[in-house]
Formats: sequence, structure tokens, C-alpha cells
Amino acid sequence: MASINDIGVAAAINIVTAIAFLLAFAILRIQPVNDRVYFPKWYLKGLRTSSIQTGGFGSKFINLDFRSYVRFLNWMPEALKMPEPELVHHAGLDSVVYLRIYLLGLKIFFPIACVAFTAMVPVNWTNKGLDRLKHTNISYSDIDKLSLSNIPNGSGSRFWVHLCMAYAITFWTCFMLKREYKNIALMRLQFLANDERRPNQFTVLVRNIPTDPHESVCELVEHFFKVNHPDHYLTYQAVHDSTKLSELVQKRKQMQNLLDYNINKHMRTQSKRPIIKMGFLGCCGEEVDGIKYYTSMVESLTREISEEKQRLRTGTKSIVPAAFVSFKSRWGAAVCAQTEQSRDPTEWLTEWAAEPRDIYYDNLALPYVDLKIRRIIVAIAYFFLTFFFMIPIAFVQSLANIEGIEKAFPFLKPLIEVKFLKSIIQGFLPGIALKIFLMFLPRILMEMSKFEGFVSTSSLERRAASRFYMFQFINVFLGSIVTGTAFQQLNRFLNQSANDIPKTIGVSIPMKATFFITYIMVDGWAGVAGEILRLKPLIIYHLKNSFLVRTENDRDEATDAGTIGFNTSEPQIQLYFLLGLVYAAVSPILLPFIILFFALAYVVYRHQVINVYNQKYESAGKFWPDVHRRVVTALIVSQLLLMGLLSTKGAHKSTPFLLVLPVLTIGFHMHCKCRYLPAFVTYSLQATMIKDTLERTREPNLNLKAFFRNAYAHPEFRVGEDLELEMAVEKPDKTPELVSTKRGSWRNTPLPSSKHSCPYSP
Amino acid sequence: MASINDIGVAAAINIVTAIAFLLAFAILRIQPVNDRVYFPKWYLKGLRTSSIQTGGFGSKFINLDFRSYVRFLNWMPEALKMPEPELVHHAGLDSVVYLRIYLLGLKIFFPIACVAFTAMVPVNWTNKGLDRLKHTNISYSDIDKLSLSNIPNGSGSRFWVHLCMAYAITFWTCFMLKREYKNIALMRLQFLANDERRPNQFTVLVRNIPTDPHESVCELVEHFFKVNHPDHYLTYQAVHDSTKLSELVQKRKQMQNLLDYNINKHMRTQSKRPIIKMGFLGCCGEEVDGIKYYTSMVESLTREISEEKQRLRTGTKSIVPAAFVSFKSRWGAAVCAQTEQSRDPTEWLTEWAAEPRDIYYDNLALPYVDLKIRRIIVAIAYFFLTFFFMIPIAFVQSLANIEGIEKAFPFLKPLIEVKFLKSIIQGFLPGIALKIFLMFLPRILMEMSKFEGFVSTSSLERRAASRFYMFQFINVFLGSIVTGTAFQQLNRFLNQSANDIPKTIGVSIPMKATFFITYIMVDGWAGVAGEILRLKPLIIYHLKNSFLVRTENDRDEATDAGTIGFNTSEPQIQLYFLLGLVYAAVSPILLPFIILFFALAYVVYRHQVINVYNQKYESAGKFWPDVHRRVVTALIVSQLLLMGLLSTKGAHKSTPFLLVLPVLTIGFHMHCKCRYLPAFVTYSLQATMIKDTLERTREPNLNLKAFFRNAYAHPEFRVGEDLELEMAVEKPDKTPELVSTKRGSWRNTPLPSSKHSCPYSP
Repeated sequence: MASINDIGVAAAINIVTAIAFLLAFAILRIQPVNDRVYFPKWYLKGLRTSSIQTGGFGSKFINLDFRSYVRFLNWMPEALKMPEPELVHHAGLDSVVYLRIYLLGLKIFFPIACVAFTAMVPVNWTNKGLDRLKHTNISYSDIDKLSLSNIPNGSGSRFWVHLCMAYAITFWTCFMLKREYKNIALMRLQFLANDERRPNQFTVLVRNIPTDPHESVCELVEHFFKVNHPDHYLTYQAVHDSTKLSELVQKRKQMQNLLDYNINKHMRTQSKRPIIKMGFLGCCGEEVDGIKYYTSMVESLTREISEEKQRLRTGTKSIVPAAFVSFKSRWGAAVCAQTEQSRDPTEWLTEWAAEPRDIYYDNLALPYVDLKIRRIIVAIAYFFLTFFFMIPIAFVQSLANIEGIEKAFPFLKPLIEVKFLKSIIQGFLPGIALKIFLMFLPRILMEMSKFEGFVSTSSLERRAASRFYMFQFINVFLGSIVTGTAFQQLNRFLNQSANDIPKTIGVSIPMKATFFITYIMVDGWAGVAGEILRLKPLIIYHLKNSFLVRTENDRDEATDAGTIGFNTSEPQIQLYFLLGLVYAAVSPILLPFIILFFALAYVVYRHQVINVYNQKYESAGKFWPDVHRRVVTALIVSQLLLMGLLSTKGAHKSTPFLLVLPVLTIGFHMHCKCRYLPAFVTYSLQATMIKDTLERTREPNLNLKAFFRNAYAHPEFRVGEDLELEMAVEKPDKTPELVSTKRGSWRNTPLPSSKHSCPYSP
Repeated sequence: MASINDIGVAAAINIVTAIAFLLAFAILRIQPVNDRVYFPKWYLKGLRTSSIQTGGFGSKFINLDFRSYVRFLNWMPEALKMPEPELVHHAGLDSVVYLRIYLLGLKIFFPIACVAFTAMVPVNWTNKGLDRLKHTNISYSDIDKLSLSNIPNGSGSRFWVHLCMAYAITFWTCFMLKREYKNIALMRLQFLANDERRPNQFTVLVRNIPTDPHESVCELVEHFFKVNHPDHYLTYQAVHDSTKLSELVQKRKQMQNLLDYNINKHMRTQSKRPIIKMGFLGCCGEEVDGIKYYTSMVESLTREISEEKQRLRTGTKSIVPAAFVSFKSRWGAAVCAQTEQSRDPTEWLTEWAAEPRDIYYDNLALPYVDLKIRRIIVAIAYFFLTFFFMIPIAFVQSLANIEGIEKAFPFLKPLIEVKFLKSIIQGFLPGIALKIFLMFLPRILMEMSKFEGFVSTSSLERRAASRFYMFQFINVFLGSIVTGTAFQQLNRFLNQSANDIPKTIGVSIPMKATFFITYIMVDGWAGVAGEILRLKPLIIYHLKNSFLVRTENDRDEATDAGTIGFNTSEPQIQLYFLLGLVYAAVSPILLPFIILFFALAYVVYRHQVINVYNQKYESAGKFWPDVHRRVVTALIVSQLLLMGLLSTKGAHKSTPFLLVLPVLTIGFHMHCKCRYLPAFVTYSLQATMIKDTLERTREPNLNLKAFFRNAYAHPEFRVGEDLELEMAVEKPDKTPELVSTKRGSWRNTPLPSSKHSCPYSP
């Protein structure tokens, strides 16, 4: 058990690390050469094309303006400066709502910490419950004197303070949760109301279109909606199985890139035309003119692509039984999305179409029965993954020991036998399998969700996040408190009575406070500081830039920082909510550490959202109900554990009072669900009608059909179209800048609303 | 423990009782004097007005045609003769679906019983597991030799038979359930598709209309739907708070009845006009002309009613924030019912309007927050009712003993001290409080549902049924197996591990087989036989007929046999499903008793549905999902209990195999839910469109607005309207037959589709 000194030392180390990271960031970010690593978003949005230079020699790579070093901590106020409505424009509502999770953490825990330190810590401190342990083996520290452990068993009256605290925590948390839910629901509704015209507002995704021997899928869709939505149906877009087209487009992209590279090279050298070799890896074989060769390749591929597209368009074999059906008004689409279409509830399933960028095309064709079976398979797989993931890892670990390696690779023996190396291997190898597994876990969970058949990236991420949270709850939280693998826990819990489970966990909670403090510092503080430094992307970008980047297009790809990664980062935050709520009434000493984490993370992620990450889709904060639900779950867990802990402390009288709390909390959750959830799931007819009417007055002669043309075509269809347009309009040899127009291709198209000029430049 | 002999004797007694009941019924039903007791439905539907007479003296009261006594068991084939489609016409789909629950019982248990007796009973019988008890105190019987108890602990290989049996039971039950769900969903869809035009097809109930200082509720409704459903909205009907009107109408009904009585009397005596006295109970005071007095009373009340109606119609204060909104097409109504209307999910809540007959008007005005609070209150009240109902009963029992009575009423002392009376009181009193409670339980549960705020009688009954089932499950099923009050059980279960609970119950299950056999015979067989005899209604009808019935109207009211009582009878059946499934793999000897019950009950209830009960509403089998869910629950309970039982028998190896079953069953349930539930909840746009289009072609000039006029007016509004019409058209003195036209008032209006001439007369 760590003493206050130990914690202090650990804190100091972590604070120094964090500050070192922040300093490194502050210096690295103002170097022009790193501009694309730390401000990629501005490049991707087309608001910045080259790094700001301060003039002078080498200023292209290194910042020589020493005044800027003085203002090295400027980024923090800068990150906080942009007001929320503008941030919504700049980064989308999803990012803003995501940032509010950190704010929610601060709002919940700051007041709780204040109350806990003024009301509860003195009560804990002035006891001598731990003194009786002085002469036993069990070690305790000053930290534990601040916690509930310091109150001797059976001193019932003192526990009333903790009971009141539990009530205060519950009410405050619920109050803040409700306020936040309400705010975010309002923000979402406002965002949707003010949003400009988008195809997804008018479009419904129809799946499980039945097969008919007499009609093709297209005819069926046309007939069905013309009959059943006669006044509102406008048009539809079939979904093609375009695996081959994807391959062709991919190949053309490579060729186009190589062509650009060769043209660039030619532009630089001017005189001689670039020569390439046709043999292995371009090192040997016949020599040909690079530009000519790639031009012809691109041209032939473009031809092939057009043919394939023609085949897809005219043939009906590649059409999958799903379609995007567009309506004349938002009202018509809202009606179609919310109603039951067919008598057979497994056919003609309709739902709001996600944004075109958000659609996950591969799952659109899955039939109803498949979906159900896949769901069951994934549920079983997830169960085994969560409870038995240690088995294969232990197996790998047993193989990957010194003796195993020596047997498999005898020639390494002399090397391994070096004492220093041996100890590293022995210390390192057993952990590495686990580390690798944990590194790949989010990806595994994402693949599971994909297999399960979700049709939008946003829903994939939401599902993966909820699985990741469950995994962390069982294996990190419970796993740290009740040592043993998850399966051992499960077995133990099955053999315990329902009353005993919270007791078992509750008892060991105060003892683990110091462990979790260290965890918060290492995983939270250092993690956040590492996030802003972006060491890995920095190295990768410079490596790519030096060796792989050949064209502007390549550079753009190397610049892309990806998205914020909701499926990994949100469950991480939720773990801190859980720790905070569980320890608030037990060992409030944990709270300042959590508050510091939330504050630091808020600033850092605000900076990242403004400058780095670029959302791939906009779901208008649709994930908030998940966030809310997980915080409520954490609250209920904390109440049950406190109940278990207090009942072992001989405060049995408190149990009925504590039992009220989970009941109230569940009631609160149900209330919130009825009150605010619909705003995240459906689109009210009133809102659609208002938007429709406004639009009709403003643009009475709008041609909606043209607006929908190809809006939901498979990305490869669209990418191709753009290129074809380019090919038709311009000659391939003209200028290398041409390719940069492709930046605005489907994946990275900026939100149209965010095209305003942003006053914030780093 | 009862031996086979004991069971045989009990069976004989019950069979004799049942046969005696059936014989009594067979004789009583062919007496003309009882015609209105045993065939009330034909009278209420207006298909029969007087009993069939055989001629001869006294034939008006007693059947003198002795040949008919010979055919006294005719009613059974007669009850089975009417084919299902005709039964749907005659009694509505609800009754037909209800009867199918019994059929489902037969279909599930008959094959299971056959397999169990050929495969499992021999395995059980050829063991000597119970022989080791021969020298202990524990008594056992030959019955138990047929059960799983007879297999000695640890003889693992024998238990594989039971395991296979459990699988067979699960698969067969699920198969039958799925088939039945599918059939009934189809029947419902067909019924709705073929149903004639009804107001509820076009109407949506809107609740929680927000208040607006500038507009009245009526204006708000009109504006809101004109704006948000411009092409489909037709008209609306406001809901009034008509408590005063109800009182007035009730009073006028009494007066009208007395008037009819006096007119009748005058007709019979001809010469002198009937005289009534105005004093106490009509025994003293001023003498007036009866007909004149009541005529003036009815007239003045009619005037008051019209004034009140005028006040309600013109004034806006009595309008509650709910309305029935009708649309131009079924499509429009389906859209409105299934979509979210307003941004605020607590306002403008829409749902399919139930049939006008089915609406429970008192709850229409409840605001959103009230509903939530009421739901919580009822949940808590129900919890206490289920687990603590014994406390007040025990308290009453402690008061109602001999000493208590002697103290309260000292003058009764000599009477009570008589030994015979004393023993009766002592034996009788303690049970009477419990009996009274159990008698009133369905009514209490119904009142709870009413308080909870459901808006249709059908949903009230469904909710009351599910509560009654839970009560029976906990207090009858678990209460009989694990003796002790429900609360003691709860406490014990909380202190046991999740693994131990099925064990505790599982162990005592085989021991209770004989108890449940007796229960089935007494509650099931005798209950069903008592149902057909209708002893209580018979006595009450004759009493009423002799003393209270003064007019045709009175007689009609005395004739009304009410409805089948879904909220009490369905949970009763479910208990038999539970017993059957639990004992099928443990003590199959129970099955024949259950099969006999289902067969007998099917015939009896089919007879009752044809001849006696008259449904007050038609929900088109909307309760089937509840029935299905409860059978599935029973199946899962049976699997868990078998698992517990086998694990105590030392067959631990079987646990994982048995654990698969509940998982599969839950999967099956979820599958059925996705597949068939929507047919019971929503109305697909395809179906509405077909019906709309057909109607438009057949009746292009239909005036729907007139069709909806007053369709959803409060019943008192409508009853009044009928009478006003009568008053206007005819003179009150004309003929006493006049009143009989009132039989067709709103409550007992026959289903329009059932007006065909029915070939079945008893």
C-alpha cells in the first residue's frame, strides 16, 4: 500500500513527464516543418496550403522567430477561445458534443470534490479505525486515513455522512446529466433545423426488398413506393455490388498517382522525360517513357471503369436487394422512415438514411435472417472474448519463453544467453502478447460490429464503443478490484448470493484507491499529454514525407490525421466517470486526480478538434444517449458497491436507504429516455414540415431530382465520376496542380457549412 | 405423500363432481325458463326474443319434450360444430383466439405426453432410487416411482434420457408456439383486411395537447393537424369532461325505466292508472299519477341533459387536452399513429385509437408527468401487494378469532359457545379473509391498471392479466413448492447464490407432483364444469327475474352475461402451461390431467363463447403476444428448474447441455418478436393503401365526415342522442315495446358483421 509520499513521488514523475510532453509539443508545433502534423485539418479543409514562414534562411523548416518561443503556451487559451457555435461550424456537432463529455466530467466532479473534502474527509480523518491494524501485517497509509476504511466497524452514526454524500452525489449527477441531455437534444434539434439541404434529409434506406420472379429490384422499388407513397415518392437509387469496380478504381488511383509523380519530375527536370523500367520492382526490364506509359494505363483503366459502370448500370444482376429511396419532401421521408411498410415485418425495412459519407456499403445487402444469425454469433463471440481472452494469450505466453525460442531458433541461443538480453526477454515477452491483444482489441471489436451488419460508420463506432466499455468494465475495473481473470470472477459470482457480490467487491474498493490513482496518472495524464504531442504521427509523417510522398495527393494522404476515434476514446473517458463515482463516497482523494484529467483532456482535445482531427461523418451527436446510459450505469454500480461496503462495515441500517438510490436512478434513466431519446432517433413531422415549407417559399422551382442524382451512389462510382469529369475537361499533361482538386473527393469533403473563413490560425 | 390409490380416489370424486355438474347443466339448459341464462348471447344479439317452447301446459317454464332429455349431451358436438370462420363472425376474433390458447395446450402437451410415457416413464420406473427411503421417515408413493425422484443420485447415463426429453420438449413447444403465432398474426391481418369500414381505422388518439394562452384546445388541434398533415387531415372530436352529464343520464335512465314499468302496469290493468306515493320508499306521502309524474321527470331531465350538452359543446372549459383526430384515409391515420409529431416528445402523443366501445374515457385527460408518476406508484404498490399481501390478512385473521368476537359483541357469547358453531367459526374465520382477498384480487389489479392510465379496456385487461399471472406464479406456484410467504422466499433467494436458487426449487418439485394433481382436478376440472353450469348467474338471474325485473330493459340487463374475463381466465390457463412444462420432464404423470383439463375447457368455453359471453370490444387478438411471452417464460422456468434438479442429482455433466436451452429459447423469443409482433402493434402502409384504394373505387362519393360524426363522443353523449331521437319521433304513451329498441344501445351493439342469421340454435 502506497503512502502519501509514494503517491507524491508518482505524481511528481507523471507531472514532469506530462510537462515535458507539453513543452516538446509547444516547441515542435511552431516549426514549419511540422505544420502538417499539428494542423492537418486546415490543410484538408483547404484553408491553408503551405506553412506560415517567418522569413530568413531555413525558415521553411525551422522557426527562427524567437518571440514565438516566448508565447509557447499560447495554444491553450487559443484552443479555448473559439466559441461553441463557431466550433460547430468548424468541426461539426459530433466533435462539440464529444468535448462536452469532458466538460460534463468537470461539472459533475468539481462540486462533488468540494463537498467531499469539506464534509467527508474530516469525518474519515478523525477516526482511528485503521489504528487497530498497526500491530497486524496489513499495511495502510495516510491516504487510507482519508477514506472510509478509517472508520471503525459499527460506528453507525458516522456512516450517515457517507449516506448523505451518496444521496448528494446521485442527485447532483442526475441533475447534471439531465441538464446536459436536454442541452444536447436542443443543440441537435437546432443543428438539424438550421442545417442546409442534404440528400439524407429526404432519403430513406430500404432493405430486404423481397425477390420477385417477374420484376427486377428496381422495378419493385419503383412500383412499391409509387403505390404506397403516391404523393411523396420521388426517385430511388439502387445499390450495386461493386467489388470489381472498387478494384479498378483503386488501381487507377495508383496509376494516376504515379503519373502525377512523373509529371512533377518532368516539370522539375524539364529537359528529359522520365524513364521507367517494366521489370521486377521497376529495377530491370524494358525501358519506357513514364508519362506516356502511365497516361495510357490511366486511360485504359478509365475505359475499363466506364465499361464496368455501364455493365452495372444496365445489368440487373449486380443490384442488391437494398435501395436509397428519396422523397419530394422531408415530411415524406420522415413518414416512410418511421412507419411499417409491409405486412411482413421482415420485408421492406425502412430507416433514415445516414449521410452518404457515413454509409457502410458492404453491409447493405445482408438479408434479414443473416442479420439475426450474425447478431447471435457476435454475441457469443463477444462473451468468449470478454471472459476467456486470457486463454490464448496465456498459451502464446507459454510458447514465447526463453526455452521455446531457443528450441525454435537454435542459432539465437548465444545471443539470448547474454544476461542483459535474457532478462529483457523474460520481462518483456510474457507481457507482449497481452499488449498486442489490447492494442488490437478496438479493431477486433470494430470488425465484430462490421460483421454484425450495421450500415453506417457511426453506428459501427457506437456499437464498438459499447463493447469496449463492457470489456474495460469487466477486465480493467472489476479485474483490478477482484483479482483473477474475468471467467474466475464470473464463476465466483455465480456461486455467491446476490447479496454477497456487492460485498465482495465493495470490501476491496478502498484498498485499491492508490492503484487507481497511479492508473489515472499514467493512463490519463500521460496519455493526454502524449495525445497532444502526436509522437507517432509525427514520426510516421516525416518518414512518409521523406521516402514515400511523391505527389501532392500523397502528401495529403500523409497529412490526414483521421478522426477522433469515438470507439476507443469514449470508453476510456467512461472509465474515469466510473472511478470517480465509485470513489467519491469512499476515497475522495481520487477526485482531484480525475478532475485534473478531465480539465487537461478538455483543453487538449479541444485543440485537437480544432487543428487536427477531421470527422469523416456528421451524426449530429447521435451518440449522446450511449454516453448518458453509461454514466447512469456507473452511478448504479457505485451505489451497489457502496451498499456492499457499508453492510460489511456493520452499518446494516443504511442498506434500505441505499437501496432506494438505484431504484431512483433507474427511474431517472427511464424518465430521460422517454423525454429526450426520441430527439436522437426520430425526426418529428412538425420539424420536417417547417423546413419543407421554408424551402418551398424560398426556392419554389427547385429541381430535387437533380439534387439526388448519384448522391448515394457507391463511393467508387462517384470517385470515378469526378475523374471522368476531369479527364473530359482537362488534358492530363497540363498541370500537376490538377490532382489537388481530388482532395475534395467523397471521403474528405468538408461540411459545406464550414466553408466560412476561420479567424483562428495557429 | 399420496399413493396412487389416494390419487385415484381424489380423481374419482372430482370426476363424479364434474359429471354431476355436466348432467345438471344438460338438464337445466333445455328448460325454457333458463333459456336466458344459458343462451344470453342470442338474446343480446337480437337473434332470439323468446325461449323455444315445446307446447303443452307449463311448457313455458319446463321442458316436457322427453326426447330432448335423451339427447342431453348434444351440446358438446354442437359447440364443436361451428366452423372457425363463422365463429369469428359470430363472436369476434378475440374469442376465437382465446379458444386457441386451449387448443395450443392440447397441441403442445398431447405429443409430449405420448413421448414421455413411452420413453421416460419406463426409465424412471425401472429404478430403485426411492427404495433407500424405505427405512427412513420420508414417505413416498407409487406415483413418485414414475418420476425422476426414483433415479438414484449419480446414475449419470439415465439422466441423458431426461436431457433429451428436455430438448424434445423445448423444440416441440417452440415449434408449436411459432406456428400458432404465425397463424394468429395471419388471422389478425386477414380480419383487419376484411373488416368493414370502422371509425377506428381512420382515427388516431392524440394526447397531451399542449396548452396555449391564445388558442383553445380545439383550435390548436385543428391548426396543428392542418399544418402538419395538410393532405390527410379530415376532422377531430374533442373529449369532454362529462361527469355531470353522466350523472344526469344515469338518473334519466332510472326514471325512464320506472316510466316503462308504470306504462306496462297500466297496459295490464287497463282500467285504473298507476298511483305512486312521493314519501319515503314510496310507502307514504302524497299520491300522484305514476305515468304523468315519471313522464314529466324524464322530460325535465332530458331538458337538463340537452342544456348540459349545449354547455359542453359551446364552452371550452370542460374540454380535456386529448382528441380523436380522423383522417381522410387509413393511410393518413397509420402515418400519424406511427410517427413522432412534435419536437417535444411529451406533447402531441399519437396512437391508434381503439374501437369506440373499447375506449376508457376516464383516463384520456391524464397529463404526461402524471402518467409516469402513476406508473411508479403502481409498480411499488404491486410489489408490496405481491410480496406482503399476507400481512394485513394475518392481522385481520388475528382479530377475527373467537375471543375477539366475544369481546366486541358480548351478547353473541352464548351462541358462540355452542361447540358445533365454535368449531365452524374456528375453522372458517381464518380462511375467510384470504378467500375474500383472492376473490377481489382481479378487481384490485384492474383498479391498479385503471389508475395507471391505460386508455382502452382491452389494454387494461391485458395489463391486469399479466399482473395476475405474476401474482399466481409467485404465490401459487413458487409458494406451493417453496413453502413460506413470498417475502420469505424473496429474502431467502437474495441470500442464496444465483446457482442455488434453481436447486432449492428444483429439489422440491418432484415431491409436489401429487399436490398439483389434486390442484388441477379441483381448480381445473371442477372449475370448468362449474363454469358451464353457471350456478351463480342462474340463481342471480332467477332472483332478479322474480323480484327486480320490471321492464324488458331490466330483463335485458339481467340477461347480460358479461365477457369472458380475459384478465382472470388467461392467467389461470397459463398456470397449467407452467405446470405442464415444469413437470413434463420430471413427473410426466401430471400431463394426462392437464390434457384432460385443456380438452374439457376447450369444449366448455367454445360453448360459452357461442351461447353465453358477449365481448364488449374487439381487439382482433391483440393479446396473443402476451400469451406467447408467458408460455415462453414458463418454458425457461422449466428449463432452469430441471437444471437445478439434475445438478442436485449428481448429474453435473448435464448442466452445460441444459444451459444451452434457455439461451436458445430466449433467441427463439426474440426471433418471434421481430417476426410477428409488428402485426399486433402497427398497421402497415401497404395494407392501409390496399383498403383505401378498394374503398375509393367502390364508393367514390363517400361522405366520411358524416361517418365520423359523434363516433367517438363520450358514451353518455351518444346514449342521450338515441333517446332524444326517440323522444322526438314517438309519443311516450304509445307502446311499451318502444323501450326494447334501446337494447341496441352503445354498450351492446352487436358487431355489424355478425348480423347474419346463425344456423345454430340450441
